[in-house]
Amino acid sequence: MIDLPQFTIVIDYLGTFAFAISGIRAAGGKDFDLFGAYVIGLVTATGGGTLRDILLGVRPFWMTQPSYLIITGVALLASLLFSSTFRYLSKAFFLFDAVGLGLFVVVGIEKTLAAGFPFWVAITMGMITGSVGGVIRDVLVNEVPLLFRRDIYALACVAGGIAYALCFHLHVSLSFTKIIAASVVIVIRVLAVRYRIRLPAFEKGRGELQK
Amino acid sequence: MIDLPQFTIVIDYLGTFAFAISGIRAAGGKDFDLFGAYVIGLVTATGGGTLRDILLGVRPFWMTQPSYLIITGVALLASLLFSSTFRYLSKAFFLFDAVGLGLFVVVGIEKTLAAGFPFWVAITMGMITGSVGGVIRDVLVNEVPLLFRRDIYALACVAGGIAYALCFHLHVSLSFTKIIAASVVIVIRVLAVRYRIRLPAFEKGRGELQK
Amino acid sequence: MIDLPQFTIVIDYLGTFAFAISGIRAAGGKDFDLFGAYVIGLVTATGGGTLRDILLGVRPFWMTQPSYLIITGVALLASLLFSSTFRYLSKAFFLFDAVGLGLFVVVGIEKTLAAGFPFWVAITMGMITGSVGGVIRDVLVNEVPLLFRRDIYALACVAGGIAYALCFHLHVSLSFTKIIAASVVIVIRVLAVRYRIRLPAFEKGRGELQK
Repeated sequence: MIDLPQFTIVIDYLGTFAFAISGIRAAGGKDFDLFGAYVIGLVTATGGGTLRDILLGVRPFWMTQPSYLIITGVALLASLLFSSTFRYLSKAFFLFDAVGLGLFVVVGIEKTLAAGFPFWVAITMGMITGSVGGVIRDVLVNEVPLLFRRDIYALACVAGGIAYALCFHLHVSLSFTKIIAASVVIVIRVLAVRYRIRLPAFEKGRGELQK
Repeated sequence: MIDLPQFTIVIDYLGTFAFAISGIRAAGGKDFDLFGAYVIGLVTATGGGTLRDILLGVRPFWMTQPSYLIITGVALLASLLFSSTFRYLSKAFFLFDAVGLGLFVVVGIEKTLAAGFPFWVAITMGMITGSVGGVIRDVLVNEVPLLFRRDIYALACVAGGIAYALCFHLHVSLSFTKIIAASVVIVIRVLAVRYRIRLPAFEKGRGELQK
Repeated sequence: MIDLPQFTIVIDYLGTFAFAISGIRAAGGKDFDLFGAYVIGLVTATGGGTLRDILLGVRPFWMTQPSYLIITGVALLASLLFSSTFRYLSKAFFLFDAVGLGLFVVVGIEKTLAAGFPFWVAITMGMITGSVGGVIRDVLVNEVPLLFRRDIYALACVAGGIAYALCFHLHVSLSFTKIIAASVVIVIRVLAVRYRIRLPAFEKGRGELQK
């Protein structure tokens, strides 16, 4: 029998690790020092959940236990030691990232529902949890956020949120609801990246749908 | 007899619409996808009020009802469908924007006073409500915020706040106080844009007043 | 006998002044107007403490009394009037800035401990109090934050926090603990700048330690 909460923690930490790595990588080539790289990694991994918790009016999750600071430290160390190996692990990181995203979305939804908000707020918070860290990362390294122009990312979070709401209203058991919602996020992300599916661009002036 | 609260809601929604349009337009020419344009529009329309509510320690206004998310969706749709018409509507949008700004400032002031803060905090919050959304918009599209270098904008919010405080201390009725404060914001904005009135520039090194 | 609280307030105001000046200077050469320069100065001086207070769930410190808004105004006025003199005062400003940083870190730590958090959160909040204002300043003027690539800054805050925790566990008196923690921050900052000590760079791709 799988111990679901234990399993969730493992996924949460792996997702945090993958998000931190994506932040630390973005710090490369920007003339950052080691501590700067660490902070970018930390903000990428925790920024979304922190904004969610501020908006919900609850204590930011990373202030209750130091795991997230430690995992980011491990991610920095691993970046330094195994950088040449990392080139061959892009796919593994992408998978961590997608799985972490799925879990982050589910966590965001559940925390919001637990705080007494309706589903449309919960779906929004799921998206914020999953995607705001990457936006802050891109703002700090002075780039236009990838979120707004890259393969379906935020929308995968929204789709997972809608799946959660549907399962809930169909009285699916809670464990299954979580697994289905996270899977929707993960599958959409993987398919979007593998088949280079993108949303139509939004173009200046004309504002027409661009294929 | 005019139904003031009803009227206020209409203005609030028109202002939100105009703010969202300004965000969606800023997303043009930045290689954003449709969802990215939507998010920029939403953040422009709601960012100021959200920061205000976080600072005041109250529930962010847009989390209590989905109108703001829906209005931003309508703004995106309108941008796509009527983009050629929009070119001829710049003046109408500017007016919506100025009227919305006036109302946003008044809402910011009243929420802050209701939370028990003194007038100088309320005036600051009126300015934050009116101008922070545009600042976040400009940061997200990776531009130096227009707020800091364009025609009188934030200062119009401050002037409206001072007008509110004056009316209050002169025991003007609440309805008139609101109308006067909002009008001050709107008139200053319209005059500043029409006659290209700007604040003196602040120049590096010399730090002298530039005409 | 020195009146410590009185002395603390003086240092706090001098630190605020120095931080505001650093923001106002960053606004130079960016085509900002006077009000824009003021806002950048204010955000630089108060941004770190504001984020700390939001994360702690307490009322932002600058909303309880208008001193910080006034000091920033004085800083702007001084920038305009004495800009030519300021060139010869760089060292004095750097010292204000370092002393202010030391005090801001101590204030951040104490507020966090008072809110019932453990030391690792307090050390993090000390760093946030000292360094986030400068990060927001750099984001608003559209630069990659200096914090992440310049001489030891955030790490000086962390070192001060660790010194505070050590003194606390060694039962050093509170006054001495504060003075030692602030001094650690100040001394590290001064030495880092004087002897151009930097952290190793974090380089893209290779991720090796760069000397």
